[in-house]
Amino acid sequence: MKTASFALFGAKPAFDKPLLIGQLYFPSWERYETAFRGIFERQYYNNNGPLHEELEEKLQQFLGVKHAICVSNATYGLMMVADAMELSGKVILPSFSFAASAQSLSWAGLEPVFCDIDPDTHQIAIDQISALIDGGVSGIMGVNLWGGACNPKAIADLAASNGIQLYFDSADAFGCTVDGVRIGNFGRAEVFSFDATKILSATEGGCICTNDDDLAARLRSIRPSYGADKPVNIVRVVNARMSEAQAAIALMSLEDFPANQKNNEALYRLYEAQLNAIPGLHLVRPSGVDFSNYQYLVCRLDEHEFGLPRDLLIEILRAENVVARRYCYPGMHRSIPYAQELPQYLDQLPNTDSLCASCIQFPIGALVSAQDVERICSILDRAHQASAEIHARYEK
Amino acid sequence: MKTASFALFGAKPAFDKPLLIGQLYFPSWERYETAFRGIFERQYYNNNGPLHEELEEKLQQFLGVKHAICVSNATYGLMMVADAMELSGKVILPSFSFAASAQSLSWAGLEPVFCDIDPDTHQIAIDQISALIDGGVSGIMGVNLWGGACNPKAIADLAASNGIQLYFDSADAFGCTVDGVRIGNFGRAEVFSFDATKILSATEGGCICTNDDDLAARLRSIRPSYGADKPVNIVRVVNARMSEAQAAIALMSLEDFPANQKNNEALYRLYEAQLNAIPGLHLVRPSGVDFSNYQYLVCRLDEHEFGLPRDLLIEILRAENVVARRYCYPGMHRSIPYAQELPQYLDQLPNTDSLCASCIQFPIGALVSAQDVERICSILDRAHQASAEIHARYEK
Repeated sequence: MKTASFALFGAKPAFDKPLLIGQLYFPSWERYETAFRGIFERQYYNNNGPLHEELEEKLQQFLGVKHAICVSNATYGLMMVADAMELSGKVILPSFSFAASAQSLSWAGLEPVFCDIDPDTHQIAIDQISALIDGGVSGIMGVNLWGGACNPKAIADLAASNGIQLYFDSADAFGCTVDGVRIGNFGRAEVFSFDATKILSATEGGCICTNDDDLAARLRSIRPSYGADKPVNIVRVVNARMSEAQAAIALMSLEDFPANQKNNEALYRLYEAQLNAIPGLHLVRPSGVDFSNYQYLVCRLDEHEFGLPRDLLIEILRAENVVARRYCYPGMHRSIPYAQELPQYLDQLPNTDSLCASCIQFPIGALVSAQDVERICSILDRAHQASAEIHARYEK
Repeated sequence: MKTASFALFGAKPAFDKPLLIGQLYFPSWERYETAFRGIFERQYYNNNGPLHEELEEKLQQFLGVKHAICVSNATYGLMMVADAMELSGKVILPSFSFAASAQSLSWAGLEPVFCDIDPDTHQIAIDQISALIDGGVSGIMGVNLWGGACNPKAIADLAASNGIQLYFDSADAFGCTVDGVRIGNFGRAEVFSFDATKILSATEGGCICTNDDDLAARLRSIRPSYGADKPVNIVRVVNARMSEAQAAIALMSLEDFPANQKNNEALYRLYEAQLNAIPGLHLVRPSGVDFSNYQYLVCRLDEHEFGLPRDLLIEILRAENVVARRYCYPGMHRSIPYAQELPQYLDQLPNTDSLCASCIQFPIGALVSAQDVERICSILDRAHQASAEIHARYEK
């Protein structure tokens, strides 16, 4: 019985406890304790504290960008940028992204215009953007997906020639470079996520980068509820201050970036070598960058070649305590509130729909060892080999 | 020379370092370390973690409310409530409140309708609400100011009889009771701030309370970017998750609430006794509650009785390292963007304008000792005694 070895059918799970998706790198207790004792002694907890200031400076150096403006999370960052850039009407973005990309527009009173993706790179389909631009469109939100980039220079040319603004959701792309330039320097602004699942982690947090002094002043005035020291002409404010605790963890994470990136890349190479031998699991390579953070491990699953549908494979893996995931499912154009409010996109994004139905994410990051990768790939290989039997037994 | 003893004119400041406004209570390093070591060992940092769950349960018990839904800050909480309650058009609120009250409406696509305040209690002028209700108004946001309450029962009757919704910004009122019932139980929902300056502190954070199961389910679905386990029909989502670090600090702060409240009240009584003897400084008593957190120490300054204008007194105190503050200055109706967008309120709120020009906040909380109160009141008394000389010397 080929199926007897699977936890889904009663065998002991391959892993004792859930192996999570997400980077989840964390400093040693000693470094953590030192950082937090400092905060405790200073009794200064948020709002432009000393660690926050140090973090913004170090991020500016690391990224080679003029302004790094830390925020409590990337969703807030995207909302603030949309407001600070004075966008109006509609903004074009790929539907294949995390919910916050489009939701930030809704909170800022803007309407998303969903663009399809390129079937090879999975980044926004640049050749389809022009057809979406009309008099009501004021900007483009590029999304730099999966440790890759969406060709920011080509999109910048397109935005400029149409007289509309451009910014990026770069939640997935901290540390990556395009032609030697760090992501964070393209468009009018870029927004990073410092969530615990990201390679740069504040456990929760984010950062807006810009080389535009005026925009930076506006953003710094929007960030605290009561404006900044030098008020500028802004419309709305939020409370998106990053705490000293968040800044402390992000500073240690930034120090560890080179080591964590190397670890990710090594795990990626291990996966790459082993997935190569499994029919139907096509590793998605970070596209459009000359240096990637390898923050995600994503495959496109060809059900016919592999022998099992994607969602059944996820079930098999979950039973083994491997938390595999669909990504961005089912696409923002099919999610609330857009499926109802903007039904015109429902059947217009075939590449997005196809990728939503076929992509699968595997664990990579701090909690994953080389041996874990081997065990995961062995499960995948055995699932492929036993696909007919699994199918038969699962359907009973 | 009566003025020579003032730091403003060159004397040594009364305090070595700035004495801040704000509660700033914080647990001992030992408790703090234990809590953070636990988080470190669990490697679980945000999104419904064990401390977060414990905090919500303990808040529910403490407040006697069915649902306490923790969020990353109160601004997000107010935005979420406005969306979850499906408010539309206009919402009535007092102009005399922190910027986030009105700003949350703007982010939720709603228009604030600014109501004046009662000249005695400084809470929203209930007798002026009815005149502001028209077909475009869908709700009232009551604000429970300064450890007091705005008569939530009377406003509830008014809202019900007009068929409009009601919720509260209770950022100032954690732990206070109205007729023995904790604030958090009134209207359809209430929002608390757990900022470091508040009596319940997560250093940054907040909480939405409601006894409405449907609303709670909607709020829990809005809170994370990707909906909750049991999705309900919501329109927008945000990322307003409270981290384990925030929850850990809030849990310790909740444990310390009785002691911190007592300390505040004792300091309040000290101020009360001494301010009584100083002409022109009228202590604002928490109104409408039978139990207050005494989170703020606020006076209305009568310039003629006291002898000095409010802003000059603030300058005098700042020079002594006593960070006194104006509160909510100059009122939301005179702040961006409302002064331009809604000019109809500019000269319609005389009590708000008058309070904005005359109120002054003094330090109370963890960093303030009984001796500090005496020294502050001594400065105030000497400033009053020397007011003519200060005026003359300041104007040179």
